[in-house]
Amino acid sequence: MQMSMRISSFQASPIRRLVPYSRDAEKRGIHVIHLNIGQPDIKTPAEALEAVHSYNEPYIAYGVSEGELELRQGLCEYYKKYNAEVSPDEIMITTGGSEALQFVFMTLCDPYDEVIIPEPFYTNVSTFAATAMVNLVPVTSQIDDAFILPSISDFEARITKKTMAILLCSPNNPTGHVYSRDELKALLELCRRYDIFLIVDEVYREFCYDGEAFTSVLTFPEYSERIICIDSFSKRFSMCGARVGAIVSRNKDVLSSAMKLAQARLCPPAIEQVAAAAALRAPESYIEAVKAEYERRRNLLVSGIQEIPGCKVSRPKGAFYFVVDFPIDDAEKFAIFMLRDFSWEGSTVMFAPAEDFYVTKHLGRTQARIAYVLNEDELRLAVRCLAEGLKAYRKKYCLDARV
Amino acid sequence: MQMSMRISSFQASPIRRLVPYSRDAEKRGIHVIHLNIGQPDIKTPAEALEAVHSYNEPYIAYGVSEGELELRQGLCEYYKKYNAEVSPDEIMITTGGSEALQFVFMTLCDPYDEVIIPEPFYTNVSTFAATAMVNLVPVTSQIDDAFILPSISDFEARITKKTMAILLCSPNNPTGHVYSRDELKALLELCRRYDIFLIVDEVYREFCYDGEAFTSVLTFPEYSERIICIDSFSKRFSMCGARVGAIVSRNKDVLSSAMKLAQARLCPPAIEQVAAAAALRAPESYIEAVKAEYERRRNLLVSGIQEIPGCKVSRPKGAFYFVVDFPIDDAEKFAIFMLRDFSWEGSTVMFAPAEDFYVTKHLGRTQARIAYVLNEDELRLAVRCLAEGLKAYRKKYCLDARV
Repeated sequence: MQMSMRISSFQASPIRRLVPYSRDAEKRGIHVIHLNIGQPDIKTPAEALEAVHSYNEPYIAYGVSEGELELRQGLCEYYKKYNAEVSPDEIMITTGGSEALQFVFMTLCDPYDEVIIPEPFYTNVSTFAATAMVNLVPVTSQIDDAFILPSISDFEARITKKTMAILLCSPNNPTGHVYSRDELKALLELCRRYDIFLIVDEVYREFCYDGEAFTSVLTFPEYSERIICIDSFSKRFSMCGARVGAIVSRNKDVLSSAMKLAQARLCPPAIEQVAAAAALRAPESYIEAVKAEYERRRNLLVSGIQEIPGCKVSRPKGAFYFVVDFPIDDAEKFAIFMLRDFSWEGSTVMFAPAEDFYVTKHLGRTQARIAYVLNEDELRLAVRCLAEGLKAYRKKYCLDARV
Repeated sequence: MQMSMRISSFQASPIRRLVPYSRDAEKRGIHVIHLNIGQPDIKTPAEALEAVHSYNEPYIAYGVSEGELELRQGLCEYYKKYNAEVSPDEIMITTGGSEALQFVFMTLCDPYDEVIIPEPFYTNVSTFAATAMVNLVPVTSQIDDAFILPSISDFEARITKKTMAILLCSPNNPTGHVYSRDELKALLELCRRYDIFLIVDEVYREFCYDGEAFTSVLTFPEYSERIICIDSFSKRFSMCGARVGAIVSRNKDVLSSAMKLAQARLCPPAIEQVAAAAALRAPESYIEAVKAEYERRRNLLVSGIQEIPGCKVSRPKGAFYFVVDFPIDDAEKFAIFMLRDFSWEGSTVMFAPAEDFYVTKHLGRTQARIAYVLNEDELRLAVRCLAEGLKAYRKKYCLDARV
């Protein structure tokens, strides 16, 4: 029986579609180092886990569709640390940042409307856009420019009557770029001129390195009505499986419209919201320690991969990913080789081929997204495996390989 | 700024859109009896809550997109009680039955494709269909016929080249009808003839009364490839806030296609899946007691409302809802009256106006969906409030009221 044309056209996630290969490798006893996915091995705040352990309701009841008030109030307090004044009714809790993005596409766009986005970008955005039949219009950012914001004129050139929004992720997944106050201001001014929205996914907000300050899009009150911030507890508190995110906007129409979708799916998960509210009570030292840990991991992995001959890396300023350009023909082929045909002293590495992080055809084919969320021993081993794997792959497949 | 035309056209949930009125009433100190929503006051199984309390992971990690294997294995064991042989790879865990329905619409249908559904039906299906741009084609079931399956020829007359599936809910929300083996068989035969799917939402499977047996659509192996079963833990184990549901199908294309959507949203909530897996270990006596309790509640509320002059009720055989036809002009107007303008000894009743449970215009305007999930004292009070409220409303608004 036929499935829909639409589902047939959707891509499988490049972050997850190689999982059958990694499972097979693991079945063969090979230790697979997962650099493909941002699944931290850092502990969830004790406050969150304690809240789960002392969950004291007699039944796990439906919550309100917009998310629990206590959690939204907690977020308001938290945003103050980023100089943003937000009230609880400007927040909708969602089932992860994933649902937040889906709601925003549906709310702002009709089918065939357009959203402009710097590429490479978090690949699952493509599926959420496709689900809403929204066309993503890319503006390419360059590895040689450290993936900074492309020029405003590049964005302006792509604005049409169908453009409803520009979508950023800051700190960026996958590039690690942190958009500056000036970059945000320039984009907001462009959005004002064309009367469109700026959506900023800030789920990696805490993770800015080298002393770099983070600017939240919520700190531009003069553009409030056209700003939508996407948030999530997953990365900040190492609780990716909790699926608690948020839409923050001072534009009341955005939230009241998204509410129709929220009510249809009833409510976000109940116990996880309790955990999230408790996580916000974790001391500042928790985040500081996590951030310092990621900075060490970044330093280790970036340096390690930069030393592999032929690998090009743009040093990330934030989040916990970077893009590497390999001296090979095809990063997906290389990824499958690493999982299926290669191991070094019983280990191998899994990463996410970057081609699907681009809309423009043929870009990113030799690139991969690397997550640096694992501990330093694992990362050291990963560098060694990658270096050896690359040698073996090039010897086998690359005519120009000088081994 | 403009929202999308699509979101503007979506209806707000009739189950939840009157919430501002109920909140206002509660602020005025009025006790609102919530017959509008299937939120049971019955305890979640101790096994599930204990699993939450002893959740012992150091961090709440991403799970696999198809849902945890232990949970899927537990479901396979559970389905055996309904004479259905299912393997774990024929199950995808979803974030509630809500997400399951959304995935199925996206997977089977392209925009403007059609799904045939007996009306009245669970109203949020409309929003899920609209999100996927799927047209719901209704076949009206009648309160005077106890909402049995309309004739097969009525379904057949609505099949076009765009028809991808027929969608049932059994036991039915909102009517309480339980589809018989013969009804299912006749529909499956129709589906086979026209090469379309039969989707059956069985989330109320346990709740069949008067000794009536339940027939799962999973017990028709000869039609396996065209059968999709929607499931959820919410009602069975009184854990509505947990958001754990499932798609069950032996058609591998359905699950592998839906997997693209599942991977994009990463995974269902982690802790709630642990709770769900544990709930499946609850003793049979748990469900038996819950079912007996609902049967008592049904008997009380149905009899009570049948005794209110002018109210017509179709006695439900399953689930925990029924449709009542009030002797008034407009059930939504009456619902608002009950919340805003009426109370009886400090209490009032909230119910869901049924008009949006129909696609066909003007049907169901005088009907409401009533949930009988509250304890008997509350239900007795609800009957009294409804009787008094109806008198007051009719006196005020209905010319033919003989008070």
